[in-house]
Amino acid sequence: MTPQSEDFSAWYNEVVVQAQLVDRGPVRGTMVIRPYGFRMWELLQADLDRRIKDAGHDNACFPMLIPESYLKREAEHVEGFSPELAVVTHAGGKELEEPLIMRPTSETVIGEYMAKWIDSHRDLPLLLNQWANVVRWEMRPRMFLRTTEFLWQEGHTAHADEDDAMRETMWALDAYAAVARELAAIPVVAGEKTPGERFAGAVRTYTIEGMMRDGRALQAGTSHYLGTNFAKAFEIQYQDEAGKLTHAHTTSWGMSTRMIGGVIMTHGDDKGLVLPPRLAPYQVVVVPIGRKEQGEQAAAEARRLGAAIKATGVRVHVDDNRPQLSPGFKFNEWEMRGVPIRVELGKRDIEAGVATVVRRLPTVEGQGKEQIPLDKVPEMLPGMLADFQSFLLARAESFREDHTAAVDSWDAFAAQVATGWARAFHCGEGACEDEIKAETAATPRVIPADAPEETGACVKCGNPSAYGKRVIFGKAY
Amino acid sequence: MTPQSEDFSAWYNEVVVQAQLVDRGPVRGTMVIRPYGFRMWELLQADLDRRIKDAGHDNACFPMLIPESYLKREAEHVEGFSPELAVVTHAGGKELEEPLIMRPTSETVIGEYMAKWIDSHRDLPLLLNQWANVVRWEMRPRMFLRTTEFLWQEGHTAHADEDDAMRETMWALDAYAAVARELAAIPVVAGEKTPGERFAGAVRTYTIEGMMRDGRALQAGTSHYLGTNFAKAFEIQYQDEAGKLTHAHTTSWGMSTRMIGGVIMTHGDDKGLVLPPRLAPYQVVVVPIGRKEQGEQAAAEARRLGAAIKATGVRVHVDDNRPQLSPGFKFNEWEMRGVPIRVELGKRDIEAGVATVVRRLPTVEGQGKEQIPLDKVPEMLPGMLADFQSFLLARAESFREDHTAAVDSWDAFAAQVATGWARAFHCGEGACEDEIKAETAATPRVIPADAPEETGACVKCGNPSAYGKRVIFGKAY
Repeated sequence: MTPQSEDFSAWYNEVVVQAQLVDRGPVRGTMVIRPYGFRMWELLQADLDRRIKDAGHDNACFPMLIPESYLKREAEHVEGFSPELAVVTHAGGKELEEPLIMRPTSETVIGEYMAKWIDSHRDLPLLLNQWANVVRWEMRPRMFLRTTEFLWQEGHTAHADEDDAMRETMWALDAYAAVARELAAIPVVAGEKTPGERFAGAVRTYTIEGMMRDGRALQAGTSHYLGTNFAKAFEIQYQDEAGKLTHAHTTSWGMSTRMIGGVIMTHGDDKGLVLPPRLAPYQVVVVPIGRKEQGEQAAAEARRLGAAIKATGVRVHVDDNRPQLSPGFKFNEWEMRGVPIRVELGKRDIEAGVATVVRRLPTVEGQGKEQIPLDKVPEMLPGMLADFQSFLLARAESFREDHTAAVDSWDAFAAQVATGWARAFHCGEGACEDEIKAETAATPRVIPADAPEETGACVKCGNPSAYGKRVIFGKAY
Repeated sequence: MTPQSEDFSAWYNEVVVQAQLVDRGPVRGTMVIRPYGFRMWELLQADLDRRIKDAGHDNACFPMLIPESYLKREAEHVEGFSPELAVVTHAGGKELEEPLIMRPTSETVIGEYMAKWIDSHRDLPLLLNQWANVVRWEMRPRMFLRTTEFLWQEGHTAHADEDDAMRETMWALDAYAAVARELAAIPVVAGEKTPGERFAGAVRTYTIEGMMRDGRALQAGTSHYLGTNFAKAFEIQYQDEAGKLTHAHTTSWGMSTRMIGGVIMTHGDDKGLVLPPRLAPYQVVVVPIGRKEQGEQAAAEARRLGAAIKATGVRVHVDDNRPQLSPGFKFNEWEMRGVPIRVELGKRDIEAGVATVVRRLPTVEGQGKEQIPLDKVPEMLPGMLADFQSFLLARAESFREDHTAAVDSWDAFAAQVATGWARAFHCGEGACEDEIKAETAATPRVIPADAPEETGACVKCGNPSAYGKRVIFGKAY
């Protein structure tokens, strides 16, 4: 495998395929998510779906095909998405009267139905979510990160006023940050986007941004306050308590299979994937060692141990039916596929009543590999996995801090964004953002919600800073 | 609402919308599945997904867009699906070099990847499943039953030989029959389809068929043994233990949102839906009665009772924040929406320490409505719901038996299929099937797996019967 330091992008393209997460689809830019990759998505989905439902949202399912005329109703929206649309022109053996768009996102079709379902203030808030596939034609596709078709959830809500809609917008942002930190072990920075980076049709866009191991940023979830833009385009109105017809305030928010790409690029190394236990299809793999009779005995012991581990709620796989492969091959393979903990069981281990337990990364100096009494292994693993999860988050946080710096001169800025993130003052002007991007390829990623209040001179043009705090700039996926 | 007896089809179209299961989509033949309908699908999905995983299948995700050339590789397959295809001709602002098909089913694209992933007999069986949306352009759309886009799961598996593939085919059929009976309370008949009713490209097709309350049949799930047809078209080959390159035997099987339509038409009545508890979004609704202070007191008591009911694991909804609506309106509404059990709580109930518990249908003469001590209600509901579930299955089974008859003359056949199912001998000739269909609109639905061995003269042409048993004929959705 190409080392990360040599060509991070080549490393990524190789590891996603070799680890059996994904294959290239038959159509350029599409992907086949294989069982090992899809299980990660299912684990993330189960957790996020629970959070969404617990907060009072209902799942629904809107059609994939949207009449072209719907997209045109919100001017900024159609302008933003037009270059990326896939269009159905023929169906049922005939040319259609109106072309149909494969949804790039569903604000327009859901707006149409919100207008139908909402009459009175009693119908608000309306809190909907759907798990769906969407299509955006990508010029530079990358597996998980930018694919022509991807999976996501999209929340769409309608509220009586801005306050309630903003509470919702921030709820979604918090939920995404929690999922990223707690499941993906990605220490994301949450906050608002600058106007130039807003969603097409939004009044305010919020984001969570993670730092990948090449120093680039990955936008891993966004939440939008749409004001009354879509409510006006689709006539989403309600009678308030005084009987007055009023436009609703809407929000939308989405997290996608892109997050899997974030996990790979936040934790992976030259040996391959490193998976956080909470998203690992197999948290533990038990590998019996030995040939013929010894191998049979070790395999039987491995199955017994596997059953005991499974009983503790740990996702375990026993690698007991590939006698044609050497233990060394299997160790390398499970390391490459990012399994957090490997348990090796050989003749000497069994005779000594122990197993050799190996973490995918040494969490503390010298703690990579240890012998543990066989009967203690099942009870110890849940704690070891939790520690490994915390370790990955802390390690990623250190990495991010090591690659982030406050800069106040243009030279320092350009040097900083070459390998990481710059915390800098910015004037807030779109033209100035464009110049920064043209010269360094860096863009404003996020105005961090938790950054201290500060003002200064724009790092590029020297004009007074906007936003009341420093902005994080970096190159991005 | 139009009574079932007057116009079953109108009744269906009205109830699905009024009960808030679904709305017509913006494009003809598409549907918006609303939260109340989608929850039913989620409940079915959770159960079926568990069965699929427990039997060793892995979920994956294949692309929605399939190159036109893939579909053309299996001759019968493309011929069967051609009239129903939706075609993407433009994307990313340009005309595509090759038109792309929105998947009507995924045998072709999955076949391509099976060929890539399978090398040796050690890679078999390969057991895949995906939950996906598919598109088939429908000339006569009906919500849930025939929609241009629908949701389903599609299992796709590859095996070393016919025996193993047939075991898989029958496993899926059994799983579908169990889900239909245990969750949907639909007493389906399982068995093989006649050659004329096979899936395009299958060697053998198996089906579960339910009888709706208008006497028509609904095909509610199918499982196909595909032989080596797709393996040959996509070069799905493996090296057997002797090193010989051999074609795999494949299967596919699917169950869809059509099942929700089956639930509606199996159990519903002139008051609206009747939902089996295991698929009911709300198994119990608590309705407090009274105005102003009395209403407030009843609502507080209803919330307490609701919390106690929820603690037993029952899905309960407390209808406590619509003071503008009368109790009678709410009772009718929850009956129309098919909630299995309603709990009424008024001033007199509370003073007497009881609740009035009303089943959606009286399960035994006189047992529709009863007073139950408040503190006993939570513990009694799970049993009452289980009884209601069994009652619906038994009731549907009686209905089916009452509307099924063995017939041996053409006149009796024609009369029987006008209102139900005929068990008849058939010669097995496609031309004869076609004549039956032309004259009566009835088709052979299933050769029941559990029917006794019998032979006789074809009910239409008098030639000797095929299949060794009677075939069920009926009009179908």
